[in-house]
Order: sequence, then C-alpha cells, then structure tokens
Amino acid sequence: MSATRKRDLVSIDDLTNAEIEGLFTLADEMAADRKAVRDLARGLILVTLFYEPSTRTRLSFEAAMLRLGGSYQSCPNMDDTSAAKGESLADTLRVVGRYGDVVVLRHPREGASRVAARYSPVPIVNAGDGGREHPTQTLIDLYTIARDKRKLDGLCVAFTGDLRYGRTVHSLAYALARFGADIVCLPAKGLELPHHVVRRLETDFGCFPVKLTPADLKGAFEKTEGLLLTAGRPFQPDLFSNAERRSAIQRRLAHVDVLYVTRVQKERLKGEAVGDLPVIDLALLSENRFRNALVLHPLPRVNEIACEVDDDPRARYFTQVERGVPVRMAILAHVLGLKDLVVVEKSAKRRAAPPLYRSDVGLHCPSPGCITATELGYLTPEFHVLERRPLRLRCAFCDFLVEPRWVASRHERVFHRFDSPHSAKIHLENLVIFGSVDEAKRAGFEPADLAEIER
Amino acid sequence: MSATRKRDLVSIDDLTNAEIEGLFTLADEMAADRKAVRDLARGLILVTLFYEPSTRTRLSFEAAMLRLGGSYQSCPNMDDTSAAKGESLADTLRVVGRYGDVVVLRHPREGASRVAARYSPVPIVNAGDGGREHPTQTLIDLYTIARDKRKLDGLCVAFTGDLRYGRTVHSLAYALARFGADIVCLPAKGLELPHHVVRRLETDFGCFPVKLTPADLKGAFEKTEGLLLTAGRPFQPDLFSNAERRSAIQRRLAHVDVLYVTRVQKERLKGEAVGDLPVIDLALLSENRFRNALVLHPLPRVNEIACEVDDDPRARYFTQVERGVPVRMAILAHVLGLKDLVVVEKSAKRRAAPPLYRSDVGLHCPSPGCITATELGYLTPEFHVLERRPLRLRCAFCDFLVEPRWVASRHERVFHRFDSPHSAKIHLENLVIFGSVDEAKRAGFEPADLAEIER
Amino acid sequence: MSATRKRDLVSIDDLTNAEIEGLFTLADEMAADRKAVRDLARGLILVTLFYEPSTRTRLSFEAAMLRLGGSYQSCPNMDDTSAAKGESLADTLRVVGRYGDVVVLRHPREGASRVAARYSPVPIVNAGDGGREHPTQTLIDLYTIARDKRKLDGLCVAFTGDLRYGRTVHSLAYALARFGADIVCLPAKGLELPHHVVRRLETDFGCFPVKLTPADLKGAFEKTEGLLLTAGRPFQPDLFSNAERRSAIQRRLAHVDVLYVTRVQKERLKGEAVGDLPVIDLALLSENRFRNALVLHPLPRVNEIACEVDDDPRARYFTQVERGVPVRMAILAHVLGLKDLVVVEKSAKRRAAPPLYRSDVGLHCPSPGCITATELGYLTPEFHVLERRPLRLRCAFCDFLVEPRWVASRHERVFHRFDSPHSAKIHLENLVIFGSVDEAKRAGFEPADLAEIER
Repeated sequence: MSATRKRDLVSIDDLTNAEIEGLFTLADEMAADRKAVRDLARGLILVTLFYEPSTRTRLSFEAAMLRLGGSYQSCPNMDDTSAAKGESLADTLRVVGRYGDVVVLRHPREGASRVAARYSPVPIVNAGDGGREHPTQTLIDLYTIARDKRKLDGLCVAFTGDLRYGRTVHSLAYALARFGADIVCLPAKGLELPHHVVRRLETDFGCFPVKLTPADLKGAFEKTEGLLLTAGRPFQPDLFSNAERRSAIQRRLAHVDVLYVTRVQKERLKGEAVGDLPVIDLALLSENRFRNALVLHPLPRVNEIACEVDDDPRARYFTQVERGVPVRMAILAHVLGLKDLVVVEKSAKRRAAPPLYRSDVGLHCPSPGCITATELGYLTPEFHVLERRPLRLRCAFCDFLVEPRWVASRHERVFHRFDSPHSAKIHLENLVIFGSVDEAKRAGFEPADLAEIER
Repeated sequence: MSATRKRDLVSIDDLTNAEIEGLFTLADEMAADRKAVRDLARGLILVTLFYEPSTRTRLSFEAAMLRLGGSYQSCPNMDDTSAAKGESLADTLRVVGRYGDVVVLRHPREGASRVAARYSPVPIVNAGDGGREHPTQTLIDLYTIARDKRKLDGLCVAFTGDLRYGRTVHSLAYALARFGADIVCLPAKGLELPHHVVRRLETDFGCFPVKLTPADLKGAFEKTEGLLLTAGRPFQPDLFSNAERRSAIQRRLAHVDVLYVTRVQKERLKGEAVGDLPVIDLALLSENRFRNALVLHPLPRVNEIACEVDDDPRARYFTQVERGVPVRMAILAHVLGLKDLVVVEKSAKRRAAPPLYRSDVGLHCPSPGCITATELGYLTPEFHVLERRPLRLRCAFCDFLVEPRWVASRHERVFHRFDSPHSAKIHLENLVIFGSVDEAKRAGFEPADLAEIER
Repeated sequence: MSATRKRDLVSIDDLTNAEIEGLFTLADEMAADRKAVRDLARGLILVTLFYEPSTRTRLSFEAAMLRLGGSYQSCPNMDDTSAAKGESLADTLRVVGRYGDVVVLRHPREGASRVAARYSPVPIVNAGDGGREHPTQTLIDLYTIARDKRKLDGLCVAFTGDLRYGRTVHSLAYALARFGADIVCLPAKGLELPHHVVRRLETDFGCFPVKLTPADLKGAFEKTEGLLLTAGRPFQPDLFSNAERRSAIQRRLAHVDVLYVTRVQKERLKGEAVGDLPVIDLALLSENRFRNALVLHPLPRVNEIACEVDDDPRARYFTQVERGVPVRMAILAHVLGLKDLVVVEKSAKRRAAPPLYRSDVGLHCPSPGCITATELGYLTPEFHVLERRPLRLRCAFCDFLVEPRWVASRHERVFHRFDSPHSAKIHLENLVIFGSVDEAKRAGFEPADLAEIER
C-alpha cells in the first residue's frame, strides 16, 4: 500500500509494522458494528479474478465487499476464458479494471500481482500468486493472534505440517519475525522449511537457526527434526556454554503462544515421500508447553486436528475464518480510498529499496514460476541490486535471488566476470548483466578475456 | 422450522399444517407488493452451496434474496473445490456460515441438510438432499394448489410419469396426505411409487391402497397400472360389497383436482426398461375427469406435456415457477428472523418424536446414500426407535428404516436376539444395537446363546 | 427495440439511425455522473444466460446493471445445465423470465434471440447469437467512433484481420453503411468478407464494391487483396474514365478515419490455411493515411497490435471497453422502461417490413446454424417474402436467404415451379412453398406437370 495515488496490496513487505497495526484498528471498526459500515462502498464494484480456484478466499472477499454495501463480479475460473484465447495478463487487467473499482487476483505464477498492479487502472489486492505471497491470509493470521494474545511482539509460534510448500507459513514467518517472534518449525519429514526461507529469516530479519534435539522437544513432537529460529541472535557460541544454550532454548520452548497447523497439500507434491506427524488432539494439547497455545490452521483441514479439539477454547481456526471478513473489509476500504489508516509510526522502519536494474538486454529471471517466463512479450525484466560484489540481484517481480557471473558496459561490446577489476568500475546505469556466456554472445558481446571464461 | 433460536428448514415434517398455512400467508404478502419488502433483508447475505448442479433452484433462491433487498454468494459446483481437498461437510458449513447469514444447501446424500443444520452457525434451508427431500419445491407445489383451488383439504391429486425416482412426488404425496387428499398414481411401467413410500403413506398418514382396473381408468390412462391411495380407510372389505367399492372408487376418480406430471429422469435410471405414458395434450385433458384439473410439473419438461397445453388456463407449471419466488422469499424471511409466521393452530398436530438412540458402538445406517456413510469420522449414528418388538428404527439423518436383529446391554459383554425374553428387559438407555453378528463380535460382544445365531 | 409494450434488443436493424443517436445521448448521460444514476434500477434483476462463454461481455453487462443500482444473476455455462436435460429454449426463457426483469442472452445458434424474445415474459437483449449479430458490441463500436470523430456520417473505415468469421465486422459494416461510410476491407488471405455480406451491403445499403490494387494500397497493406465498398455508387463506368476512377479511389483511401482490427479466431477455423497480415505498430501507423485513424479492436487481442501502440492516443481499444459500460447501461435502462430515448427523427427511415410467410407445412430454413434446426418442435418456420419472381425469402429467425423453387395453393393438392404462370396467380395468403420436390411430395402434393420437375 504505497503512498501513491493508487493503493495496491501486492506484498506484506509493502506495509510497515505500524501500518499493519493501523489496518487492524480499522478491522476492529469493521467488526464492531455491521450496520455502521454497510453503506461505505455503495455503488462500488469488486472483481475477483481467480486463475486458480479457491472458493473460501473468493467468498471471504466477496462477503467483505457485500458487508461494505458494495457489489462484486466473480471470475472463479479465469483459465477457461480469455487467457485461453492468448490474452496477456496486462490486457485482461486493462479490461477488467474498466468494469470494477478494485480487483482481487489469485494467479499461479509468482509476481503476477505486481504485473497486474502495474497495468490495472484500479487497485489490485493479491489473493495469492504462486508459492510467493498471500498477504491477506497472513494479515488475518496476525490479526487473530494479535487480538487473542493482546500483543504481537515477542511471541513463540510453532509451525507444524507442510512447511515446504505452504505459502501461508512462509509469509507468516517473515511477518512474525518482523515483530520479534521466536519461530519453532515442526515439519513433516521431507516438508521442512526451504533453505531460502531460513536464509531470508537470517539475513533480512536477523533470526538465528538452532537445530532442536529430542530432549528439547520431549513429548509428542520428540521425533520431529525441529528447528528454532530465534528472534535476534542471543546464543552466540562465544558468550554461552553449550549447557547454557540448551537451557535457554528449552526455556523458550516452554511456552508456545501459537501452534500453527497446516495440511500436507497433496496436490502440490511431486511424488516425494513425506513423513507422519502427530495428530493435534486434546492429549497433545495437554502438554504443558501448549497450555495457552492458540491452535490456528489456514483450512481446509483434513485429519491434522482431531474433531474433539473443535470445542476447546484454544481452537481458533474458525475464528480465523470469522475475522477474515473484517480484515478484508479493512483492506478493501483502504485500497478503495474509503478509509485511511491511522498510523502511529513508532520509528520509520521502512527500509530504502535497493537500486533497480532494468534488463532490456541479457539477463532474465531464471525461476520457472516467475510471471516473466510467460508474459515476457511486453515486460522488461527488472531486478533489485542487493550487492555488487558478489553480484546478487532479486527479481523485482517474483523475488527470486539471482547471482549472475557476467557483466558489460553499455558503451563497449566486451563482457567481463562480475568480480574483475574492470567490472567494478562500471557505473550501475551503464551496466549490462548476463546470466551466462551464451546469453552475452547472443546479445552481440564478446569475452574481454577468454581465460576468464575457462576459469 | 423449530422453535429454537436458529430456524432451519430441513424437512417438511418439521412444519405443522398450520405453520405451512402461515408460511403461505407470508408468501401472499411477498407477492403482493415488491416494493414493500425490497429492503427487508438489506445487508444480509445468502450463500447457495450446491454439491449438485441445479440452475433453476439456485436462481429462484437467489432471486428471492435479491427481491428482499439482500445479497447472495454462489457456489454452484461445490464438488470441484474444498470437498475435493477432503474437507468434511461440517467444516465447510462452519466456514461458509461465517460469510453468509443463511445457507441454502443442495447435496447428493440423504440427510446432508440435517448434518449441515447441526454444524452451521446460521440457518440451513434444504434445497434437496439425495432422493429424500426437497421441501421448498413441495411447499411451492402446495402453495400453487392452495391458491388455485382455494383449499388444500380433501383434494384428488393424480401423479404421472416417474413416481419411483422423482423426489418431488414423494414429498408432495406425504404432504397432501396430511391434508387428507386422495392420491392417484399413474406411473410409467417400471417407475411405480416405491414400496417404502406406499407403506409410509399407510402407516404414518392412514392411507389405503387400492389397485385400479382398466374400467376405473377408462380413457387415456386405461393401460396404466394405476394405484389409488385413499385419504383414510373408507373401503373396509367387511363393510362394503365389491360393487359398492368399485363404484365408490370411480366416484373418487371422476373429478381430478390436480394432474402432477413428471419427466422420466434418464440421468438417474440405471438401465431399467421403462414403459411409455400418454402425452398430456388437449385431447387427453378433454376427458371429463380432468375438466378442472390443474396441470403441474416441476420442470424441466421434455415431451411429457404437449406445447399446445401451454396456453390452456389449466396449465400451471410456469405459475409454479413464478410463485416459487414469493414462497422462497417467505422461507428466507422466516429463517432469517425477519418475519414470524402467524399460526392459527387448529389443533396441536405435531406428533411427539419417537425416542432417540445414539449408536456410539455397533449399528450404523446401512443405506448407501446416507450422509453418515461418507461423514462418519465425526458423526455418531442416530436412530429414532419406532418399535421395540419387532425392533424398528429410522435413521435420524436419512430416514432409512432399519430392522436390526441383535441387541446387548451396555453392562454386559453378551448379545441376544432382539426378540428374546432377555432383550425385552434391557432399558433403552442401556441398549446397544447391532446390525449383524459380525458387527457385534467386532465390538467385543459374544453371543449369549449360540443356538440363536443359527436360527 | 419495437414500439410495443415489451422492449427487446434483438438486432441493430430494429433501431433507426435516429434511435441509435438517442441511445448514444442516453449513454452520455450514464457516463457523465455515476452517482446520478446509481439508484435507477434499484430492486430490478438482470439475468445473464450464456450458452457460450464470454467473460468480458458478461462482466460488462453485469457491471452496467450494478452501476444502475440493480442486481444480476449469472448463468455463464448454460449448456451444462437444463439444456442438457433436453429443455427447449422457449421453456428456459419462460422460467428465467420469472426470476429476472431483463435477460441478456448469448447463444451459438442464429436467431436464438428472436425466439427468446417471443417467449420471454421480460425483455431480451441479444449478446451474440451465432455468427449473425452482436448488436451491443456494434453500438459500442459506433459510439466510440461517434464520440471521437464527433460524427458518424461519411467516414472511411478500414477493417483488417478476420473479416470472414468476425461477426462484429459484419454488424458494424452494415451499421456504418447506413451512416454513409466508405468501407475498406484488408483481410487476411482466406478470411475475406463473405459474399453474402458484400451482397447485402450492395442490395440493402447501396454500396458499390471496388477491388483495390497494390498501387491503391501502397505501404504496409500493399500485398493485401483489398476491397473498397463505397458509400453510394459514385463510380459508374459510363460516367468516369478508368484513370478518373482510380484517382477518386485513391482520394478516398488517403484519409482513413478508423482502423478496425480483429484477431484470427482460431477456435472457429475449420482447418483453412490463412495468410499473414502486417502487425499494427507505430511504423505502420506513421503512414500518412492513418495519421488520424482511431485504432479499434473488439478484444481480446493476441499479436495483431504491437504493445507499443497502447500508449498512442489513436489506440482506442481500451476506450471501447470503458465506453461499453455506459452504452450497456443505456440499453438496459431503455429496455427496462426506466428511460425513454429522445429521438429527433430527421426522416422516417424505417423501411416497411416485407410480408411474412408462416410455413406450417413444407419449407423450413436450410441453414444448419439456424435456431429452427434444433427448436423445431414448437416453432413454425417463418420467412419474409422479399420477392415473388424470382422467389426470394429471408428466414425470419436467422436472416438466411432462401430461393425455393416449388409452390402450391393451399386449396389444391398439386404443386408448380415458382416461375410458372399458374404460380404467379396464387395469393400470398394461400401460398404453400416447398424447398424441394421431395418435401412437396412428403406433404402430400403431386407435381402439376412432370415436365417441370425434369427441367
């Protein structure tokens, strides 16, 4: 939700912590009195554009719009229609954005929402793009926790189930890390948190990963290969003895605030064998560490949580559903410009964005799920330059990390290794980057030094 | 529509005759002035949850909600979505019931609406569950008859077409029987009214079945194997001569008030050969007995009624469609608590429900179409105990009749035949019932008397 | 939009030029102030009944209804439902017309909208029936041109792409011809304007076809087999020399007002090989003749127009989408009787309809796409008699031209050639027409003269 004229919600990274809290205050207002807000969006139209089916996300947004007094138009199966005729995502948004006043988009490709936001004449709300982001689900999870725990700072949140493909887990972990949470991973074997997520938690949010032992996890999760991602880096080996560290870890695990359960999404598995996990039942929840743990689940559940838990006050998964509506009302009211966020900025936490590199020749994003892989005809690849030495870029559409090895100057026809003395002297605005020697040659560049290529 | 806080419409059996008439008075009000009611449900949301497609039923409910000033959210193809991910019906309702204020459910399994009503936080309206009930269609049929005949008591209603699979026929027959109608069955050969429906008409509503002869049916239906189900039991063989009975029957058939036509639902046939029936055309309707017969049809029609009938004043099938909207408006207004029924209770006709048996071990409903066959994980089978000797139960979900043969006491580990002297002494609250010897043994019970098993 | 009580929009032929301009004035009003009209259709319901999918047309109508303050009900995939159970189109409309206050119909068969309008109790708007008509798209195209060119009379409009199957091209060409436009055809090879369209432009609208030469088309379209259809007949060979004609043609081509681009609809091709066309890019548009040419496209586009054109002020294809909503609002407001057209009739241009022939025996429409081919059970074929000698009829449903060869008098049992002296004496009200000798014989007629048959 940028400060520009058109307000989109593409990524949770676009929101500061204070803006998130402002949004939650707005959600409280939406939940407090249905009649007070039922004319707020009168005469306005939401279009739901779903390239992947998701009945519950779609219904939740549509219900939110209806409760604001607006209307909606539904496209629950976009793949069957114009896309099948070969229309670009940009064109579809330029059409649909003439019918509705806001578009909610679900798309299987990473970065699709960013492209949509660029071409749509009306605000875009990302309802899930590929495995990357589902920011409104993350906001609902956070809101449920914030209201039931009466705080967001310094919680201990355990995740169990599929931590590999479950995009709600990744987004929520990043968001919680921003609020200083300890994150406990209790994955099904084979569905551990991916390395790039762990790495980002370390580099971007200052978390510290600690492998957990059966002794740490004593109880139902004893056999799980657990991982603790601490808030901050409190366990420097040089300051603590092993015994001191172990005991500090166990203190942190002694009181879990939230147990976030996910189902194994069989439709996304590609034949991997995955291990079993304990079913979350009342016996498991009677462990002391879960005494005050909210049980959350993004639903649908299959058998991960026993039905007997449903009536326990710690079971909050249907509460998540219920609170999803006011949270989405708040989001819609905000992007439609019907309500502004009251933001008490504790400190200006928004980091400056790294410089942008537009790749009109040479490098393109190598991630097969990236939206630029299918919509390249009209999109110029763009990357954020995180570092020059070693050269590290992040795709501006899908956030994929790229470490290209070859660069050139726009004013010459020869290319160099990224780490050569010559490369360092090329100013960013003259830089041309290549993912491979072949790519450089195809673009009409010659190697500056054949020996470099053979290294 | 129980007197409890949450009002559901699961079965027409839940309504007394006086309540039905109260509902019809409300429907009159809905039909009288569209503008007067167009803000009644303002701000409220209907969710249509259809696990089987039915465009016309869905549109009719949605139109009703719109005319009340409310909104709707549509799930016309539920099987494609969450159910495919393995979600239970209970969970789906607990989710969807957080978006909408009332849920209209169509489901292929019998008893699904009862399960939904139990778990949904908002009222459920049954829009057809399996072959069992479609109470709103029955109410529309009754309303059409009531308004055109200016009464519901003591009518003669003939059914023709598919009386075997047509669920609208079964429901309407029961409802008419409650109002004292004579029911004339004129089925396609092979699609006769099922035995269990005839039997329920006899036992529950006091009807008396009489096979009709070609002489009784003289005319277009001469070759039909007709059956008359009389209101009450007026033809006791000991009181009347054969000739007297025949002539009384013919008097009853001389004036048909309603001819209810159904199409042969080929999509539900399982390869049976079925006979032909006369097409309902103006020639057929010129028979004296049909002089004042309303022609009804639940639609869609194929060729059962000739197009030339459409303009005849007796043709009321499009009137049924038209009146469906105010009837459904009345139902929605009632279950949403926007309107109360004005009930002039002639006599307290609601029968006491038979005692309930919760089968936490042993017996489960043997009907393959019962909702408990697929949703058993969280549902305990329940049965109404109609009789102890012989033991006759009715599934509390799908109404299937069960006659189990083995029982035990909760305090022993041996089981007995239901008709043994020992069985009779077991108090209902201690009773355990088994559908088979195997089931009893699997539950850890031993036969009290091996000889009983071999009988 | 007839003067009768119920207002339908089946064909653009139903509107006079003055009525079209009245509709455009109404569209201006709709576009001017969204709040001023947002309660106009309050409490009214639009039903979209789509037997062919078309997300954008459906969304555009639904958005129009919502902006008028009304509601909609969507049937985006009608083929999956009642039609599959064998219901007639007439019955479906008689049902759906009891739920909604206006029905928007898209159907694959030609003439379907006319049948629907006859049986529906509420107004029908044709959203495309087969390859015949899509009058609202034509009105949107005309409106876009009228507002950007500030006139509709005497324009030069070039069509490129698929002129064979693109129904928007045919309808728009007829409409433009009524306003005195020169029409330039620049088709892909193999996808030329069909002969019957060229012929109707000649006979009904007085156009004159001129084949274009490479010299006429010098530039990007040089290799195209172009055709000019002039407004009126200015080039009579007897009045002009060849050189004079050529130069007059080139003057007409020097200033193209509109370049209407269509995509090759691969889904409608039946294996034909089709030629390539130049992509519309900025280089092509820099040709002097296109200096002030609006670029229109009914969308979706694939690659016909380069993305670089999107930001050029001549690109109006997204403007078409945007203006589609107020045009459809105007249409809905009119057929719903919420607004009347202010018509300044310059001259009574509505032509008298030719006499109607109801074919209760004998002739039926031979077009395989005609709605009467599938719905014959209840429809009597009807034809407009354009001429008696030679006998030329036009199907009153699908507009197909028929030239039958055999006729009879209702009072005799013999039939004659249409051009025999006897035939000429039969009064139209006694005429029976046959498409073939066999058809006549099957109807029980004998040849008056065997020699005629063998001719």
